[in-house]
Amino acid sequence: MLKFLSIACYISFYVLSSATLNAQDQGEDALYIKRIHNHVLTQGACYDWLTTMSNDIGGRLSGSANADAAVLFTKSILDTLGLDKVYLQDCMVPHWERGADERVSAIVKGKSPMNLDAAALGNSPAGNVSAPVIEVFSLEEVEKLGRENIEGKIVFYNRPMDPTQIRTFNAYGGAVDQRGNGPAVASRYGAVGTVVRSMTTKTDNVPHTGVTIFKKDKPIPAVAISTIHADWLSNALKNGPVDVNIKTNCQILPDKLSHNVIGEIKGSTYPEKIILVGGHLDSWDIGSGAHDDGAGCVHAMQVLHTMKALAYKPRHTLRVVLFMNEENGLGGATTYADTSNKSGEFHMAALESDAGGFTPRGFSVDGDKAIFAAKFKAMTKWLPLLEPFGLSLSKGGGGADINPLKSQQGVLIGFRPDSQRYFDFHHTAEDTIDAVNQRELELGAAAITSLIYLIDKHGL
Amino acid sequence: MLKFLSIACYISFYVLSSATLNAQDQGEDALYIKRIHNHVLTQGACYDWLTTMSNDIGGRLSGSANADAAVLFTKSILDTLGLDKVYLQDCMVPHWERGADERVSAIVKGKSPMNLDAAALGNSPAGNVSAPVIEVFSLEEVEKLGRENIEGKIVFYNRPMDPTQIRTFNAYGGAVDQRGNGPAVASRYGAVGTVVRSMTTKTDNVPHTGVTIFKKDKPIPAVAISTIHADWLSNALKNGPVDVNIKTNCQILPDKLSHNVIGEIKGSTYPEKIILVGGHLDSWDIGSGAHDDGAGCVHAMQVLHTMKALAYKPRHTLRVVLFMNEENGLGGATTYADTSNKSGEFHMAALESDAGGFTPRGFSVDGDKAIFAAKFKAMTKWLPLLEPFGLSLSKGGGGADINPLKSQQGVLIGFRPDSQRYFDFHHTAEDTIDAVNQRELELGAAAITSLIYLIDKHGL
Repeated sequence: MLKFLSIACYISFYVLSSATLNAQDQGEDALYIKRIHNHVLTQGACYDWLTTMSNDIGGRLSGSANADAAVLFTKSILDTLGLDKVYLQDCMVPHWERGADERVSAIVKGKSPMNLDAAALGNSPAGNVSAPVIEVFSLEEVEKLGRENIEGKIVFYNRPMDPTQIRTFNAYGGAVDQRGNGPAVASRYGAVGTVVRSMTTKTDNVPHTGVTIFKKDKPIPAVAISTIHADWLSNALKNGPVDVNIKTNCQILPDKLSHNVIGEIKGSTYPEKIILVGGHLDSWDIGSGAHDDGAGCVHAMQVLHTMKALAYKPRHTLRVVLFMNEENGLGGATTYADTSNKSGEFHMAALESDAGGFTPRGFSVDGDKAIFAAKFKAMTKWLPLLEPFGLSLSKGGGGADINPLKSQQGVLIGFRPDSQRYFDFHHTAEDTIDAVNQRELELGAAAITSLIYLIDKHGL
Repeated sequence: MLKFLSIACYISFYVLSSATLNAQDQGEDALYIKRIHNHVLTQGACYDWLTTMSNDIGGRLSGSANADAAVLFTKSILDTLGLDKVYLQDCMVPHWERGADERVSAIVKGKSPMNLDAAALGNSPAGNVSAPVIEVFSLEEVEKLGRENIEGKIVFYNRPMDPTQIRTFNAYGGAVDQRGNGPAVASRYGAVGTVVRSMTTKTDNVPHTGVTIFKKDKPIPAVAISTIHADWLSNALKNGPVDVNIKTNCQILPDKLSHNVIGEIKGSTYPEKIILVGGHLDSWDIGSGAHDDGAGCVHAMQVLHTMKALAYKPRHTLRVVLFMNEENGLGGATTYADTSNKSGEFHMAALESDAGGFTPRGFSVDGDKAIFAAKFKAMTKWLPLLEPFGLSLSKGGGGADINPLKSQQGVLIGFRPDSQRYFDFHHTAEDTIDAVNQRELELGAAAITSLIYLIDKHGL
């Protein structure tokens, strides 16, 4: 770029919506949102917190010692922020463990066995099975093939994520049934094991784990293999039969007591109306959960850090919730919503950051049909304040941990950062602090803080 | 993120501008833009081309053998695309060479010398100077301090890029005068050398080179040091005097013959109206110029690759220009514009990609005052077609290589990808293919191709 500058001033072009704030509010709000950004970009602590969570604690699978350590660490940080209340909320979580020495290898007659890059899926049982592989591209295909073709086999789900989806989450949504339900369906028709193509559009040697759910079906060993090895296996099958050996050493231990971590500033005017901002503390075990969802946790913590630093007095109660067990059970989210509903709380808005620490692009908004249209319309009047920061509003899901709050008739909001690199790292050993850019993380925190500020100042 | 999906369909919220295309055009155009994206995301060649340019050719400083190799390589690719014309355009370029073993060290009395991460600036002469350091924060400060304080010293420019600028190019624009003109101003007041804080908001050990210009001032050794060492030096100076030794082995050789690389498809209806899309082939020597500006070159080449693959017949002449010598002289751009003006050409639109291979965010639009307002307004009617891909339009600079075409009264357009990571790599040894994400690069190429399609189809 540019030898020198010739940097013409960046004048954003706004197509203004018809509903607008009055000029005074706009000016004040614009200044405050700029102050928020200045604070986070120069004095934000979120990147340091995430570095500790990633490097010193690491992967935080529900029920693990690391998950306990993350509870203590984040609570200790919230304790320093001068909040009105910081506490742990008990919740029970499943306790699945990967175990050591998992291994997947392919055997083509007359050749040496080939080791495949693999990772057991969460809820996979231990096992050591060898069987011929059958490649399929959907759950429906397994159902059609029926027991006569599936029994005794290892089912290999190999439908790729669609690379032409612009938002990668849509591509994920279009393929992840193979990982989530594929092993159960295969088991139902007599398969002895399942191999799933990793959930990424990248062609590389990195396996992506994630939860699978058996419910009433008999658990069978289930692993993800890298996309390079999925392509290899698919090609090998074109030339003749291939056997695969899956060796897993997973175990499901008794459910364990764990905790959501909660901190709040009491609202000065409407203490009974809650604005929640959160992420989930747990992660998968094979990386250090930096983007998923350490980033969301430190985003949420940064909101309160910045509000306190700017001496902002919220009119509504601002509550950070770091949920436990999003990845494999939603134990924390369910407990939180049950407790909240029982005590008659009202979450006017709940925002979850669970799509990584990338450059912010906006927010998706959800809510009960009875309130959604009016609330969404009210939010669009903030667009002129958000667009200079590259932020838009769209209709779409809030987040797995806040969805159970929908019945309270508040607004659910999902933070939407740029999605292009998310599935390079998601549920892999590569999801470490090295995958996170400090400025991108901070801009996310500033974007979230800005929206929370607008919600608090203007109500919703 | 998300245990399963609950991926609500992503419904973008558009605030439509009053000017809109008719419904039929919108439908056709939306389909075509989707086809463009599908092609680039599944059959695009830009990432492979960039890998070759980065890994097999490397840094392409004007006048170097690598720059010659890049000319041949990109021409050979254009030759395969079935264009109507592919040719080289001669241009003269400066030929500065870094030389080996440059070294910068700081000497604090009573301590061992400290090596600083450094890189000579383009146009720095060879030298071996040792002198006391004086820290300043602006060119004006040097002028105020005057010859009595500057003579015989090494001037250390240490004003950081402003991290609170949301678009990092604005922060760059606010600091880069220190690198571009700082050494000349220091020389004017008798300084014997210049040390400049690297142009980045990151705190790391990576020096960022770039051009400096002396014009009539006597050239003096000029280097950039890493931000970590800039902070170190600043702190050291708080405790007492520091001498710095700068040793550079640069040389300025005679100007050299080089080339712009040009390929075009003749327009079927308006062959005399040109739509140009380009980037610059040259780069700095210490990395491999992957983002700056290999990405821009392969973006431009991908436009024609995709148009040919989709059998699109442009109504206007589509021309790819890979400019030589953007970084230190604009030899290619000047020659191109002069030749074009002399032969009475009309560039209806010229688009440059020179801001990296990151996720596209939109385009900045520029043009002569006489035509700008009407043309910009005409382009805004395409916003509903661009916004689903996360693309916006703003007023702002086109690009250093296309600016000389402004007098032709066409529209100048700058491609605007996300800017957050650009100055982590810009002009450094880290600007390699590893810094480029394939999907982000491809989405940029698809965005550019889409806008070129709209300009060609609807005119401008």
